[in-house]
Amino acid sequence: MLTNDELAKWDRENFMHPSTNLGQFARGEGSQRIITGGDGVHITDRDGNRLLDGFAGLYCVNVGYGRTEIADAIARQAHELAYYHAYAGHGSEASITLAKMVMDRAPDHMARVYFGLGGSDANETNVKLIWYYNNIRGLPRKKKIISRWRGYHGSGLMTGSLTGLELFHKKFDLPLAQVIHTEAPYYFRRKDAELSEEDFSAHCAAELEKLIQREGADTIAAFIGEPVLGTGGIVPPPKGYWDAIQQVLTRHDILLVADEVVTGFGRLGSMFGSAHYGLKPDLITIAKGLTSAYAPLSGSIVGQRMWDVLMQGTDEYGVLGHGWTYSAHPIGAAAGIANLNLIDSLGLVENAGTVGAYLQKQMKNAIGDHANVGEVRGEGMLCAAELVKDRDSRSFFDPSEGIGGKVVAAMLRRGVIARAMPQGDIVGLAPPLCLTTAEADTIVGVTAESLREVCG
Amino acid sequence: MLTNDELAKWDRENFMHPSTNLGQFARGEGSQRIITGGDGVHITDRDGNRLLDGFAGLYCVNVGYGRTEIADAIARQAHELAYYHAYAGHGSEASITLAKMVMDRAPDHMARVYFGLGGSDANETNVKLIWYYNNIRGLPRKKKIISRWRGYHGSGLMTGSLTGLELFHKKFDLPLAQVIHTEAPYYFRRKDAELSEEDFSAHCAAELEKLIQREGADTIAAFIGEPVLGTGGIVPPPKGYWDAIQQVLTRHDILLVADEVVTGFGRLGSMFGSAHYGLKPDLITIAKGLTSAYAPLSGSIVGQRMWDVLMQGTDEYGVLGHGWTYSAHPIGAAAGIANLNLIDSLGLVENAGTVGAYLQKQMKNAIGDHANVGEVRGEGMLCAAELVKDRDSRSFFDPSEGIGGKVVAAMLRRGVIARAMPQGDIVGLAPPLCLTTAEADTIVGVTAESLREVCG
Repeated sequence: MLTNDELAKWDRENFMHPSTNLGQFARGEGSQRIITGGDGVHITDRDGNRLLDGFAGLYCVNVGYGRTEIADAIARQAHELAYYHAYAGHGSEASITLAKMVMDRAPDHMARVYFGLGGSDANETNVKLIWYYNNIRGLPRKKKIISRWRGYHGSGLMTGSLTGLELFHKKFDLPLAQVIHTEAPYYFRRKDAELSEEDFSAHCAAELEKLIQREGADTIAAFIGEPVLGTGGIVPPPKGYWDAIQQVLTRHDILLVADEVVTGFGRLGSMFGSAHYGLKPDLITIAKGLTSAYAPLSGSIVGQRMWDVLMQGTDEYGVLGHGWTYSAHPIGAAAGIANLNLIDSLGLVENAGTVGAYLQKQMKNAIGDHANVGEVRGEGMLCAAELVKDRDSRSFFDPSEGIGGKVVAAMLRRGVIARAMPQGDIVGLAPPLCLTTAEADTIVGVTAESLREVCG
Repeated sequence: MLTNDELAKWDRENFMHPSTNLGQFARGEGSQRIITGGDGVHITDRDGNRLLDGFAGLYCVNVGYGRTEIADAIARQAHELAYYHAYAGHGSEASITLAKMVMDRAPDHMARVYFGLGGSDANETNVKLIWYYNNIRGLPRKKKIISRWRGYHGSGLMTGSLTGLELFHKKFDLPLAQVIHTEAPYYFRRKDAELSEEDFSAHCAAELEKLIQREGADTIAAFIGEPVLGTGGIVPPPKGYWDAIQQVLTRHDILLVADEVVTGFGRLGSMFGSAHYGLKPDLITIAKGLTSAYAPLSGSIVGQRMWDVLMQGTDEYGVLGHGWTYSAHPIGAAAGIANLNLIDSLGLVENAGTVGAYLQKQMKNAIGDHANVGEVRGEGMLCAAELVKDRDSRSFFDPSEGIGGKVVAAMLRRGVIARAMPQGDIVGLAPPLCLTTAEADTIVGVTAESLREVCG
């Protein structure tokens, strides 16, 4: 490794980081951290800090850091065949094997998997396939996509439009015209405090129905949602939500896209969130947990009713004009195979359920009664504490106070990485699925101390 | 490796391949090839065929297959730190070092590099940055992007819109409204046979000027182009083209995006196509040659005048709401470093120039006088033979005859991979930059034999 100062200077002078304040970083005013290694739930930086990563990178390092089984698989593949493309029926043993493994794990009615690189491009693929599908069916007007406010589906132009968060829209002229948003299934933030969860779900379904009526069902192609809202606040659906929503979609011949980039491959304590909540999607978006981020790989799992039409389309019009050079990249495929095998052999889906439940229970015990904790919620290995100014009135802090960010910063000083979720004061946790109860205790203890430091 | 039949069956039943006829492939009617290894310019499939890859994957395996230096670098990185994100000022030694190496090689007026995964997402980033740039400048109407017919810039919704090829538009409702196309700089296909190259360049610039006048310069943000048209036919620019175009852009305050996914890092015999043709771009798109495809990595190199405004924007509005989970992925960064070092140590930029010129000269000698060869053209390690029905009238074969495809299929039977470019009968070659003159002779010999087999 280079001397610290030289590497830090190269960083400031050459590297444009994602989701960063560019001016501050370039001037050396922003935070800068160079990561050098990791093992299990911990990462290490070049200054010798060892941190418990309570967010698994960006909810993606599901098996934890430093897994030699995956590193060895990547190394073997790199030496054997680092790359060949998958266009026009080409494949590698790794990409074909992983396709089979994904489909073995996917819900029964799914037919094929298309591999991309990251979640954003997988959702981009999904929208292309949806439009193509309705063109082949002779429904050229049926093209709009409904997403939810606070959904997260990527940061491209279309996928950032699907995302229902202000940070990804403002100054970028998004959302694009083909995307419309409906209410977030965010029970804690419901307007009418008296509503039961079931009634709130019925309200969300009624809002969706009204939106469809207003736009015209013949203009709406698909509805996209994460089984559990992720970046929008880590919000599990209220009781009965997905049943109610799916009834509306079926009535209006609207496809369902389950964005399982966060929830796929075990995070909820089930292999897929679709199975967990009884969704029957037409497309499932996968990424993060597919390789635990050891190499870039994403996918679009296509359901049978869409697949039949896609085949009809290429029979009628020839080759499907869609592809990325790095679709089904052998290195990503090799990482994916080793990762899915490790998830099985270590029992990580089950562990996500049991230790995730323990984490949430202990978190509730530790801070659930704090005057500034409105709610502790979660599902599987996802947990969030939503901070409020006043519990009874569910009133929020002024965003300019940055309370959530201050708590997360206080946690970092104590060696635990959490994430301040946008549009609220929400402390988010999404640890690796291999988290132990002792590590969960550490997270809870640090959260409680940090909360008291900031809020008293 | 599994028995052939089982792997082939898994492939047909689970894997949705890019740019493939889905129905044919699923029914076992399409071509299917499982690649198992490669060395130098050759790949090997599971049936024991050894093929000379005259297209370097998808013009991306620039250093050739089986380079242990890159595989070793990937293996080391996978064991040391396979992943951490680059959000909010985080980095790894590999990503920072590669940022420095890219900027050392980029034109002097470029300021920073943002890393993505593939060329499509890099162009997606570019459009987001362009829109943000003009919003920060207080020019919210100045947003349209001009691309060229036959340009290739990706296969997403926006990037497929920038692409000016029918296959990527039809049945996908593209191009999107914000994209408009201007004439391809395709001298061979000019309408007026009497025009000189210089006059044709002036004509292209005049067409661009007219388009800008028609739309209103205050609505046009940027112009995107490949230094040499790639997938659109492997067409080097006519003399004076880029000078004439850049004068128009400067006059109307329009940014220039040089899409160097194919040309970056040596393919033209220069490190960048921008230097080769005297472009002064505001953004440079890089991918393929950045890692020689050993791991997915792309980039957007941002010029100083844009960078200054991006910094102003985040000073005024905070964090830039753009990022991919796998931005600056350590595995890709490690592959990139080893790849760029190998390009230097093997002298591949120079080799691309010299052996590329040899390939083109020998190809002209071998088939340039054939009655059905309209033109042999190229630049550096890019070469194309455009087939015509009649040389004198420059009349083309009926597309339904698929003459280009037939020649390429005949070449494949002789052990050489070429590519039938879309919208024409164009045999495309883009070999690894390490091609030797003996290997160039093989390609030329096989092309000539195959041409005679198909066309007599």
